Amino acid sequence: MSLKEELQQKIDNLNKPKGSLGKLESLALQIGLIQQTLSPTLQHPCHILFGGDHGIEREGVSKSPREVTWQQMINYGRGGGGVNMFCRQHGFKLRVVDVGVDYEFDPKQYPHIIDRKVARGTHNFLHEAAMSQADYERCLAIGAEQVNECKQEGCNIICFGEMGIGNTSPSSIWMHLMLDLPLEACVGAGSGLDAAGVKHKLEILQAAVVHYQQNCANGIQPQSREWTETTIRYFGGFEMVAAIGGMIRAAELGMIVLVDGFIMTACMLAASHLEPSVMDYAIFGHCGDECGHQLMLRAMGADPILHLNMRLGEGTGALCAYPIIQSAVNMLNEMDNFQHAAITKYF
Amino acid sequence: MSLKEELQQKIDNLNKPKGSLGKLESLALQIGLIQQTLSPTLQHPCHILFGGDHGIEREGVSKSPREVTWQQMINYGRGGGGVNMFCRQHGFKLRVVDVGVDYEFDPKQYPHIIDRKVARGTHNFLHEAAMSQADYERCLAIGAEQVNECKQEGCNIICFGEMGIGNTSPSSIWMHLMLDLPLEACVGAGSGLDAAGVKHKLEILQAAVVHYQQNCANGIQPQSREWTETTIRYFGGFEMVAAIGGMIRAAELGMIVLVDGFIMTACMLAASHLEPSVMDYAIFGHCGDECGHQLMLRAMGADPILHLNMRLGEGTGALCAYPIIQSAVNMLNEMDNFQHAAITKYF
Repeated sequence: MSLKEELQQKIDNLNKPKGSLGKLESLALQIGLIQQTLSPTLQHPCHILFGGDHGIEREGVSKSPREVTWQQMINYGRGGGGVNMFCRQHGFKLRVVDVGVDYEFDPKQYPHIIDRKVARGTHNFLHEAAMSQADYERCLAIGAEQVNECKQEGCNIICFGEMGIGNTSPSSIWMHLMLDLPLEACVGAGSGLDAAGVKHKLEILQAAVVHYQQNCANGIQPQSREWTETTIRYFGGFEMVAAIGGMIRAAELGMIVLVDGFIMTACMLAASHLEPSVMDYAIFGHCGDECGHQLMLRAMGADPILHLNMRLGEGTGALCAYPIIQSAVNMLNEMDNFQHAAITKYF
Repeated sequence: MSLKEELQQKIDNLNKPKGSLGKLESLALQIGLIQQTLSPTLQHPCHILFGGDHGIEREGVSKSPREVTWQQMINYGRGGGGVNMFCRQHGFKLRVVDVGVDYEFDPKQYPHIIDRKVARGTHNFLHEAAMSQADYERCLAIGAEQVNECKQEGCNIICFGEMGIGNTSPSSIWMHLMLDLPLEACVGAGSGLDAAGVKHKLEILQAAVVHYQQNCANGIQPQSREWTETTIRYFGGFEMVAAIGGMIRAAELGMIVLVDGFIMTACMLAASHLEPSVMDYAIFGHCGDECGHQLMLRAMGADPILHLNMRLGEGTGALCAYPIIQSAVNMLNEMDNFQHAAITKYF
């Protein structure tokens, strides 16, 4: 019998009607397969929050001004951000990593910020690639390095979050290009644009995609590895590429990867186009409020745990889903089976 | 400024885009109003699980045999049931109350079962009222008494669950009659009936309703208080009426009432027909897998926290939602506001 069959048999023999714990049962099966065991555990959960700024923000595609990125990065050190709150609640160790914020943080004043700054924001992809191939590779390595450190601390479940004003824009374009969906269906209000703001954002992103197709992607086979890498680095934020590097490394190390909202789902999409098997390790925490997130999840075959109309980012939606993952693991380890409990098997 | 406006202002000034914590924000508002404070707390959460058997089970309306009720009641004392697991995980004190299980529990052997047995199961409502007016009132009082004890222990958030083979049947009929929805839309598979089983269940319940309308409800003004009470006691289980009594008492005491799946939602429906204000205290934890649950929630204007395709009962769906309620309360108490955090207000 395969491990998958053994896990399913164990789940079906717990003292409950077959299938009656719904999503908990499919999560338990997936986690057992990730950890290759009938009795998985969750150890030392970590949350890595990558921060970076975006050249495209200069085009007025976001309701929030660029300075919010560095202000929030500082704020995470005070413990008052959404991400702090949920990390405390669920026992996650938080790492805040500056991959490309447009601000010089004084390390003495802000010791909680891990300095891996590549540059003070990406280039403006309306006119040029957001980052070079070298910086793209550097960001992937930064993400992998952070995950390695978590693994060394004993972590086997890892969550990723981001802070980067403007980062719904590259996410929408990745979704549009990688999933071949109309750009209009991929673009939403971000942190709170009105209808005119969304229209302007869409026009800017359309122009950026046209420029990219004519000047950069021209001649590269769509959906090839070269095309995927080019698409990622042309539009992506430093914090997003670091998350991709982290996700791929976490999967290599056999860790559970907890995926947050629109931006982190776009990073998982990109990661899966580089390494398809990374999806086996992904648990989608949350379907956010951003237009397009639900569509992207569906296109990826993902069934997120929570639907709470959240759109804060930082990884908050995924962190809120953690207790459900714990419940799934507890079910496998703590629930009696029919034989032991001496219950008439329901059917 | 009213407390509601003050709460909304506090929520809007937390350092996040307005509305970006979605459901957590509406939960925080509701909990602040229930506790009449800007800084609510969750104290000593309790879960009361009422057990009872149903005369209608003799008509083959359930996949699971009647003996599962008493077997599971015993099993809760071993700690291996779904409800035990989730109570442990979320720090709920569990009370298991026998209101009408068809079994004599030895109190020495099963000290975890609180004995409030009214009878060994209800009458079969295909032919007669499930319980007398006196037993109905006794069950309401049992529910209220249990809640009073929780309150005395310091509890301000209470969850209700049930164990009673056959209890989707009265739930479906209450829903049908109280919400004036077609019976077919209210009847589902329960713990796992196949299509033929559902058809048989529907026929039995149709016949029971016809008999009730002709012999008992005849001459009583529909939706009057007398009609509601008659409908509740004609079909209801002892464990369901105890839950109704508990819900009404909890609301009177200003406690948060956490509502579980199909059966507990039907009890909240019945409770709200007796005391409409009880809905202000209700937080719906979960939209279950039972056909009709989503429809009932919608008709009640309820927006449940979780959608995990669970259908175990026992209160398990609602218990799984508890960390989200904690997150909502933490948000109000722990998240920085824009002024304090020195963040540019997003908009």
